[in-house]
Amino acid sequence: MTKFVARSAAALGALSLMALPALAQDTAAAAAPAPVSPEVAYILNTLLFLIGGFLVMWMAAGFAMLEAGLVRTKNVSMQCLKNIALYSIGGLMFWVTGYKLMYVGVDGGFMGSFGPYSFDAVGGNALDTGYSTASDWFFQMVFCATAASIVSGTLAERIKLWPFLLFTVVLTGFIYPITGSWVWGGGWLKEMGFSDFAGSTLVHSVGGWAAISGALILGARKGKYGANGQVFPMPGSSMPLATLGTFILWLGWFGFNGASQLAMGTIGDVSDISRIFANTNMAAAAGVMVAVILTQIMYKKVDVTMALNGALAGLVAITAEPLQPSVLQAIIIGGVGAAIVVFTVPLLDKLKIDDVVGAIPVHLLCGIWGTLIVPLSNADTSYSTQLIGVVAIGAFTFIVSGVVWLILKAVIGIRVSEEEEALGLDKVEIGVEAYPEFGSGSQRV
Amino acid sequence: MTKFVARSAAALGALSLMALPALAQDTAAAAAPAPVSPEVAYILNTLLFLIGGFLVMWMAAGFAMLEAGLVRTKNVSMQCLKNIALYSIGGLMFWVTGYKLMYVGVDGGFMGSFGPYSFDAVGGNALDTGYSTASDWFFQMVFCATAASIVSGTLAERIKLWPFLLFTVVLTGFIYPITGSWVWGGGWLKEMGFSDFAGSTLVHSVGGWAAISGALILGARKGKYGANGQVFPMPGSSMPLATLGTFILWLGWFGFNGASQLAMGTIGDVSDISRIFANTNMAAAAGVMVAVILTQIMYKKVDVTMALNGALAGLVAITAEPLQPSVLQAIIIGGVGAAIVVFTVPLLDKLKIDDVVGAIPVHLLCGIWGTLIVPLSNADTSYSTQLIGVVAIGAFTFIVSGVVWLILKAVIGIRVSEEEEALGLDKVEIGVEAYPEFGSGSQRV
Amino acid sequence: MTKFVARSAAALGALSLMALPALAQDTAAAAAPAPVSPEVAYILNTLLFLIGGFLVMWMAAGFAMLEAGLVRTKNVSMQCLKNIALYSIGGLMFWVTGYKLMYVGVDGGFMGSFGPYSFDAVGGNALDTGYSTASDWFFQMVFCATAASIVSGTLAERIKLWPFLLFTVVLTGFIYPITGSWVWGGGWLKEMGFSDFAGSTLVHSVGGWAAISGALILGARKGKYGANGQVFPMPGSSMPLATLGTFILWLGWFGFNGASQLAMGTIGDVSDISRIFANTNMAAAAGVMVAVILTQIMYKKVDVTMALNGALAGLVAITAEPLQPSVLQAIIIGGVGAAIVVFTVPLLDKLKIDDVVGAIPVHLLCGIWGTLIVPLSNADTSYSTQLIGVVAIGAFTFIVSGVVWLILKAVIGIRVSEEEEALGLDKVEIGVEAYPEFGSGSQRV
Repeated sequence: MTKFVARSAAALGALSLMALPALAQDTAAAAAPAPVSPEVAYILNTLLFLIGGFLVMWMAAGFAMLEAGLVRTKNVSMQCLKNIALYSIGGLMFWVTGYKLMYVGVDGGFMGSFGPYSFDAVGGNALDTGYSTASDWFFQMVFCATAASIVSGTLAERIKLWPFLLFTVVLTGFIYPITGSWVWGGGWLKEMGFSDFAGSTLVHSVGGWAAISGALILGARKGKYGANGQVFPMPGSSMPLATLGTFILWLGWFGFNGASQLAMGTIGDVSDISRIFANTNMAAAAGVMVAVILTQIMYKKVDVTMALNGALAGLVAITAEPLQPSVLQAIIIGGVGAAIVVFTVPLLDKLKIDDVVGAIPVHLLCGIWGTLIVPLSNADTSYSTQLIGVVAIGAFTFIVSGVVWLILKAVIGIRVSEEEEALGLDKVEIGVEAYPEFGSGSQRV
Repeated sequence: MTKFVARSAAALGALSLMALPALAQDTAAAAAPAPVSPEVAYILNTLLFLIGGFLVMWMAAGFAMLEAGLVRTKNVSMQCLKNIALYSIGGLMFWVTGYKLMYVGVDGGFMGSFGPYSFDAVGGNALDTGYSTASDWFFQMVFCATAASIVSGTLAERIKLWPFLLFTVVLTGFIYPITGSWVWGGGWLKEMGFSDFAGSTLVHSVGGWAAISGALILGARKGKYGANGQVFPMPGSSMPLATLGTFILWLGWFGFNGASQLAMGTIGDVSDISRIFANTNMAAAAGVMVAVILTQIMYKKVDVTMALNGALAGLVAITAEPLQPSVLQAIIIGGVGAAIVVFTVPLLDKLKIDDVVGAIPVHLLCGIWGTLIVPLSNADTSYSTQLIGVVAIGAFTFIVSGVVWLILKAVIGIRVSEEEEALGLDKVEIGVEAYPEFGSGSQRV
Repeated sequence: MTKFVARSAAALGALSLMALPALAQDTAAAAAPAPVSPEVAYILNTLLFLIGGFLVMWMAAGFAMLEAGLVRTKNVSMQCLKNIALYSIGGLMFWVTGYKLMYVGVDGGFMGSFGPYSFDAVGGNALDTGYSTASDWFFQMVFCATAASIVSGTLAERIKLWPFLLFTVVLTGFIYPITGSWVWGGGWLKEMGFSDFAGSTLVHSVGGWAAISGALILGARKGKYGANGQVFPMPGSSMPLATLGTFILWLGWFGFNGASQLAMGTIGDVSDISRIFANTNMAAAAGVMVAVILTQIMYKKVDVTMALNGALAGLVAITAEPLQPSVLQAIIIGGVGAAIVVFTVPLLDKLKIDDVVGAIPVHLLCGIWGTLIVPLSNADTSYSTQLIGVVAIGAFTFIVSGVVWLILKAVIGIRVSEEEEALGLDKVEIGVEAYPEFGSGSQRV
């Protein structure tokens, strides 16, 4: 298995002595045990996966709140349901097919093997892996679910529930694991030298490509775009929920990027995780302030949804390489990400691509930006290889997703009727309104 | 003190050498120190309690949001207050009487000793316990508060504040610690072989039994049930808050089940915690999807509140044994839990037992299910002993809770008047409306 | 660098052997390695900063939700924006000037040195520090942002966005680091013996002094106080969001106080962290119950916002010394804090100091209370020195903040016009309403 090598050369705690030979000699006699024993390194590496894993799991709640806040009242229950369902499907499918497709037997190729994944037994103590395989599975699983979360926001307010859930099955069980295998699974892109530390491309752009292919096939919401090029704003139902969602995502991102170091059993690894925390935070902070300043200049008012998306833009952008940049570089990478979002949100509207929450600028475009800029700070990468990876993964995801959407459209239909869209998905497909006692939709008491 | 033996045979970090003798010889000379020294194991065990503890503390916020979302606007402030107050009371009472009643001097019997608990001194270093006693107290305390959280949802929208708080004093200071002492404190049920890893029965069913006894004595909300058997839905005020609460609970459950391993100082323990994380997640995921599919089939629409309760059902069901099941077994255990909830929610309405948030199906029935199914994967347990435990703890909790509710009813009354119920508890008992500027209740600006 | 000595004598993991000489002899031969090797201690100390850091970062979301819930609908988006922006500014400024001003080269004096801070390189392994310098920077940074969070609540609903953000630049880049350097940076107050474990004064009172100076210069909201001394309540828009915010802050406070132990590499340190968790929780729990009981007695109804502020009062009060008090002392310290809040909120209204969320009683007054009561449990401190610290830091912060507010008022103005205040800041400065489909402000669909 090459998956760890694929993400961090110093990942295996068992390698700690080799990584720090001089140090070991400084602090202990030649024959003394390792300063961090393999057992302790195993525990710490596993703990990193568990803490990182629960933080990334928490991002599912972040997406749910962000999207619940950015859709209109009549579609909020649907968005809540889709987010908890997609996280569940992601977990189930990543066990059924995803993990082995992504990580087992890739060997420089295009995908791994098929079938459910069996991780370590009760009381498992396979010390030579350097970590519990179950903790690794858990950590990789929540990444898979994150990719699916990205899709649901873009397609909100007009997609039917069941085709969305079926698409999620394909995305989390096949598309994401296959493109993931090319890099983190030790596949052909990894062998070529492509680098994506925590998933600007492998998670965020994959979600973004799946989203944009769906948006193109699904079409815009009724009434979003006028005949003469007007764009009608459809403001989200709750800014505090959108803000909460953004803060949740920001918090979860420390696990997303930090635990992608994949090891905590040496002082070098834990120091790198610390740098990653700092850089991740600074990229997001810069993203917020760039969005605040730009919207003030451009619109004479500060747009709070842009500030939130600015944070996310910075986070996505720094994700491809959160370790190597200096703090100043992290600020620039995040800030440019936010600028990309501020300028491309209106552009998408010009193209009549209706992205309800701004997920395409944030996750797709900033994912590309973050991946392409990796060579700025990481001398082991090249701009051309990064570009090849972006294009290859983008083309595969966009095309396969498009085919899946077209099949779903042909077989069961993917869009609700115009009347249903006007009535709101909550009444039509969920039967439970989000705010039954107030809001535009209902007078029920 | 037998409390650790009661929950995990390999709990004490100090035992790590004994558990891994062969391993120790592989990696170190005969006279060398342990691969995980007792000091490091002590730190890691304590850290597990602290991380698990803050995750379970966070579940108090989850219950608050879940219940705030599932009651009507006019009772939301009350539900917020009850949840923060019950968590506070739980902490205070578990110090005043709870911990010692549950864990000190039980010795195979029916309860421990009385009085406040003194944990370790500043700079305490009693290495032989294998963990900080203060961290253990903190971790056990948040479990106690969880049991109380379960009650508040069922009895919402018609119970008076103060009798509820007084009941919480008795529940957290006496009922929960006494039944807890029978198992986790090393009492008679533990000696008999009853097993409940993280509290399907000891926490969730205890809360559920206390809730159902209260619901029977308190009666249904005015207008909930018609004279001819009709059931009038009283939809909750905010689906996003209910969704948020469910995600919070899901996150907290990793601490609830994972840290119930009680030790992280060996590679076997941390690997078991990893399995627990994976199984816990899969049971919840299965619960969501079963509820989604069943409500689609039964009602032609997906019920988002059922999906949320499906997640919780899966979580409660796997709690009695989150370690031993295979992933597939975890999926089945969680999925069956969700099916139980989908089918018993209407049943409770037929019986005119008014459970505002569905806590009885989720916590009581799935707690029973999870406890009874333990022998499926855990060969050290028997169905008959599990049944004895369920019945004994259920009978004790139901009867004692009922007596307390009846005394409270006789002495100070437990239910608001009809007019007060119609007006809403926020105006009557709290004086602060939840959403003063909108909603059904008020036109205040 | 003296910063660690300033906060915890046993902070450096590398000192673990010295701290536990008898123990070391008990468990290992004379020449054997330390029971906790310097490498393992380094990893654990760093991990404490990372976990504590992400928990305190999460408090930014808590302040955002608390304030979003306690302002009126028409100002909610503004409050969301201010909170994410101030957290971002805090991070940027603490890198640009804050950290070095606070921690580098203070040497018993009045401030450190100027300039951005460079923390450890990739793969950094400076074992002698005992922790990753990047993790320390991250942890200290989130404390700085917390101080700024306190200001935004008090001044809500009438302050302009940009002067607030500019003040935040000064507060996080200069005022907080300078007063912080006096104690945690090893400055003159530290040398005098002043003690503030986790920041009752250094974080909470500093925020509170900055807030009250702003409130005095800004004036009360239009319509808050009548000509004849009436006080008109302006109830907050969402109690569940305020409750959520309080729970988030409570959770984050385990990191705030617990990780201020600054080391986890000895069993003494991790045991102390455990005591801190327990005491922190008990102070908050007592605060809730004191507020619940007092408001019931005084107003015949329980005030949920007071209960929430009671929790925060207890948390702020215990922050100056969360380790040394017994559980009973922690309960008393927290309970008295809540009583202070219950009695001073009306007092501030009598003085026509308009503090929208109650931040001055909670953070300033309870911060003073907690700091002054330290000698009750900590024999190394004196009441007179504590008083000197409170007065010195208070005077500096109040005066410098006042000057900054007056300059901002003179140069760009700090207050919106009367019409703008009536219309709400969301429409005037943000352009995105918080709840566009309901609420008092708008009929947009």
